Amino acid sequence: MQFKVSKEFIEQVTGLIESKKSHELELLLNDLHHADIAEILDELEFDEATYIFKILDSEKTAEILLELDDDLRENILSRLSSKEIAEELDELETNDAADIIAELSQQKKEEVISELQDVEHAKDIVDLLRYDEDTAGGIMHKELVKVNENWNVLTCVKEMRIQAENISRVHSIYVVDDEERLKGRLSLKDLLTTSTKTPIKDIYITKLNFAKVDDEDVEVARIMQKYDLEAIPVVDELGRLVGRITIDDILDVIKDEADKDYQLAAGISQDVEADDSILELTRARLPWLVLALLGGFVTVSVLQLFEGAMAEHGKLFFFTPLIAAMAGNVGVQSSAIIVQGLANNTLSGSIINRLLKEISLSLLSGIILASILFIGGHFLLNLEFVEGMIVSVALISVIIIASLIGTFIPLLLNKFGIDPALATGPFITTSNDICGILIYFSIAKFVLGF
Amino acid sequence: MQFKVSKEFIEQVTGLIESKKSHELELLLNDLHHADIAEILDELEFDEATYIFKILDSEKTAEILLELDDDLRENILSRLSSKEIAEELDELETNDAADIIAELSQQKKEEVISELQDVEHAKDIVDLLRYDEDTAGGIMHKELVKVNENWNVLTCVKEMRIQAENISRVHSIYVVDDEERLKGRLSLKDLLTTSTKTPIKDIYITKLNFAKVDDEDVEVARIMQKYDLEAIPVVDELGRLVGRITIDDILDVIKDEADKDYQLAAGISQDVEADDSILELTRARLPWLVLALLGGFVTVSVLQLFEGAMAEHGKLFFFTPLIAAMAGNVGVQSSAIIVQGLANNTLSGSIINRLLKEISLSLLSGIILASILFIGGHFLLNLEFVEGMIVSVALISVIIIASLIGTFIPLLLNKFGIDPALATGPFITTSNDICGILIYFSIAKFVLGF
Repeated sequence: MQFKVSKEFIEQVTGLIESKKSHELELLLNDLHHADIAEILDELEFDEATYIFKILDSEKTAEILLELDDDLRENILSRLSSKEIAEELDELETNDAADIIAELSQQKKEEVISELQDVEHAKDIVDLLRYDEDTAGGIMHKELVKVNENWNVLTCVKEMRIQAENISRVHSIYVVDDEERLKGRLSLKDLLTTSTKTPIKDIYITKLNFAKVDDEDVEVARIMQKYDLEAIPVVDELGRLVGRITIDDILDVIKDEADKDYQLAAGISQDVEADDSILELTRARLPWLVLALLGGFVTVSVLQLFEGAMAEHGKLFFFTPLIAAMAGNVGVQSSAIIVQGLANNTLSGSIINRLLKEISLSLLSGIILASILFIGGHFLLNLEFVEGMIVSVALISVIIIASLIGTFIPLLLNKFGIDPALATGPFITTSNDICGILIYFSIAKFVLGF
Repeated sequence: MQFKVSKEFIEQVTGLIESKKSHELELLLNDLHHADIAEILDELEFDEATYIFKILDSEKTAEILLELDDDLRENILSRLSSKEIAEELDELETNDAADIIAELSQQKKEEVISELQDVEHAKDIVDLLRYDEDTAGGIMHKELVKVNENWNVLTCVKEMRIQAENISRVHSIYVVDDEERLKGRLSLKDLLTTSTKTPIKDIYITKLNFAKVDDEDVEVARIMQKYDLEAIPVVDELGRLVGRITIDDILDVIKDEADKDYQLAAGISQDVEADDSILELTRARLPWLVLALLGGFVTVSVLQLFEGAMAEHGKLFFFTPLIAAMAGNVGVQSSAIIVQGLANNTLSGSIINRLLKEISLSLLSGIILASILFIGGHFLLNLEFVEGMIVSVALISVIIIASLIGTFIPLLLNKFGIDPALATGPFITTSNDICGILIYFSIAKFVLGF
C-alpha cells in the first residue's frame, strides 16, 4: 500500500514533462501524497521540478514545499513572486508558514507578509517570527482550541466547532480567562456529559503541563516524552496562552538533536547532508580537521622531545600510532557514554564517583588489553621483555588517563552550560593522542633512561 | 508547574520511610505523576524504593514500573509474587504488559500469565509475545477501535463507545470485514453527519497506510514520519487487523535507533548506560578496543617494514601519529555523512558519483590542510623542504584515500544488508590508520629511496 518512487515512475514523469502533457501529469500526481510528490521532485532536474510545481494547485504545493530538500525549496521560492508565495503560505499551518518566511530575504519577507490574504493567519505568522527557533515559541503553532472560563457548556461547544474547523487534530481544549491567561484544560468527556448550562469554570481541570515561550525546545521535548503528552500549551511571560506544541513538532526536535550530537561526534560542525555542495560540506568539515592538524603539530613536538631514544630504542616509535589510537578510542567511548547520559538525564551520583568508577572500568579493560599486547608483542612483533613491559604498562596508564579525560571534559562543559557533545570526536581524540604519547614516552624514558 | 525532584524532597521521602509513616507518604506521592514517582524511586536505595512501591495502589505502580531504570525494575519484580505481577499487568496496555513479561524468566512468565484476571487482555498479551521486538508486531498494541463494514452507523457508534472505554487515544476508527481483514478507516466527522441507518460500507475511506506485523520497526517509523501519521494499523499475513502503532511508540524507536548509531560510532557495541555495572560496560566497550588493538599490531608491522629509514630519516616517524589521526578523522566524517544519509533516506545518485564528489571534496580540504602543514612544519617543526613536501603530499593522498574508504565501506555494508553504522568509529579509524601510515611511508620511500 505504500508508494515507492521507482525509476520507471520517474521516467514516466520526465516523459510527460518533456511532451508538456500537463493534464496527464496532474492526473498522475494528484492521487499521490504530498510527501511522495516531494520525493519525486527531489529526484528531478530543477526546471522539471518547477514545471510540476506550477501545474499543481496551491493546497498541494504548499504541503510539498515543506517536504522538499532545502536547496530545491530555496530555488523554487526564488522563482515565485511574493504574491505566489503568500498564496502557498495561506494554505499552511502558522508554524510551517513562519518557517518558510524565515528563510526569505528581509525585503521578500515583508512583501510576502503584506500579500497574505487571511489577516488573522497573517497576524499569527508574524507573531511566531519573533521567537528564537530553538525555543518553545519557535516550534509552537497558533492553531488550537480555547474557551473562556466564563462561558457555559453550550457556548463552549458552539465556539469549539468554529475553532476546530481549521485544526487537523484537536487533542485538548484549553481554558483561558478574560485576559487570555491559561487556566486549565477541558476533557471532551466532561463537556459532553454535563448539562449545557453548566459554567466552564465548574468543570475544567486546573492541573496541566505547559511550556513558556522561551523554554528550550529540547526541554519541552523531554517533558512531553516524560509525561507522555501528545500536545502541550505554550504561555507567554504574562501567562497568556499563545500557542501549542504537538508531538510531531517534538519528533523533529528529537531527530535534529540526535543528528547534531552524531555529527559533532564525527567532527562535523554544521548541519550538512551528503547532497549539499562541496563548499558547504568543506565548511562543515574543515574546522575540526584544522584543529586535529594543530593537535598533530603538538604530537610531533612531543615526539621530538624524545628524539634521543631513536638511536638505541627506535622500536618504541613503531608503537606511537597504536598507543595514540587506543587513547583516542577509549576517550571517545567514555565521552559518548557521558554525553548520552546527560542527554537522557540518566546520570546520577557525583563527578568524583563517576571518575572513580571510570578508573576501575579502565583498569579492568587496560589489564586485559595490555596482556594481549604483551603476549602478542612477544610472539608477533619480536618485542623483548623490557620493551614489552614498557609498552604494556604505558597502555594501561594511557587507557586510564584517556577514559578520565573522556569522562571529565563533557561533565565540565555541561557544568558551564556548553553542549557536552562538543567534547566527543576530534576534540577528545586529539587531546588523548597528545596525552597518550607523552605518557608512553615518559614511562619509556623513566625505565630506559635515554 | 513542572515538578522537579529536589534533594529536599528526596530527604523528606526517606525521612517518612524511616519513620514508617506510610499514610503520609501515600498522601505526598499520590498527587505526583507516575513518571515523577519513578524518578524519585530511581534516586532511592532499593529497599526504600520497594517500600514505596508496596504502599501505592496497583493502578499507579503499574505505570511507575514502566518508567523505572531496568535494574530497579528487575529488582522489584524479583520481590513480587506472580500474582502481584499479574495485578500490575492487568492495569497496563497490552504492549507495555508484554514488554514486562518478556523480561521475566520462562517459568515466572507462565505463572504470571496464568494469574492474569482479564481473559481478553491475557490473550492479547500472549499474542504480542510472539513477535520479534524490532518489528511492527513487536511495538504495536492491541488497543484500537474497529467496526465491521456490514454494520450501520447506529450499531457502529454503540460499539465504538464500548471499545473506546479502554483506550486513552482513539485517533482512528478502523473498518474490517467478517474475517477481520482491514478494509479502511472511518472519519469521525462522516460518522456524525451521516444518517444512523447508513451502512458503514458506504462511507468508509479505503485509502490508508498500514504496516505488516513483520515490517521492521524503523521502516514503520519512517513511513509514519513521512506521512505525518499519528497512528498506523498493523495487519497479519492474511491482512487481518491485529494491532495499532501510535506516534509515542515510534518516538521510542527513533530515539533507540539514534542512540544505537551514536554508540556504534563511539565504538560501543551494546546498549549501555553510564549507570550500568562495570562488567556490563566492559562487555560493551572491550570488543571494539580489542579490534583497535589488533589494528594497532598491523600499524606496528607496517612501520617495521620501513625500519631502514630510521637511521637517516628518523624525523619521519614523528609524523606517523599526525598522519594516522588525520586519516581517522577524515574517514569518520565521510562515513558519518553517509550513515546519516542512508538513515534519513536523503542519498541520491550512484556510488561512483558519490565517490567522485568525495575526491573533489577531499582534494580541496587536503590542499588547504597540506599547505598549513607545509608552512607550519617549516616554521614550527624545523622541517626541511623535501621532508615538508613528503609530509604534505602524503597528507593530501591520505585524506583522499581515507575519505574514499569512509564513503565506500558504509555504502558497501548497506548493499549487503548490514547496518552501515557499524562502519563508523573504531572500524574506520583503525583501517584508516593502517592505510594512512602505509601510504605515508611508501611516498617517503619513493622520494628518499631508503
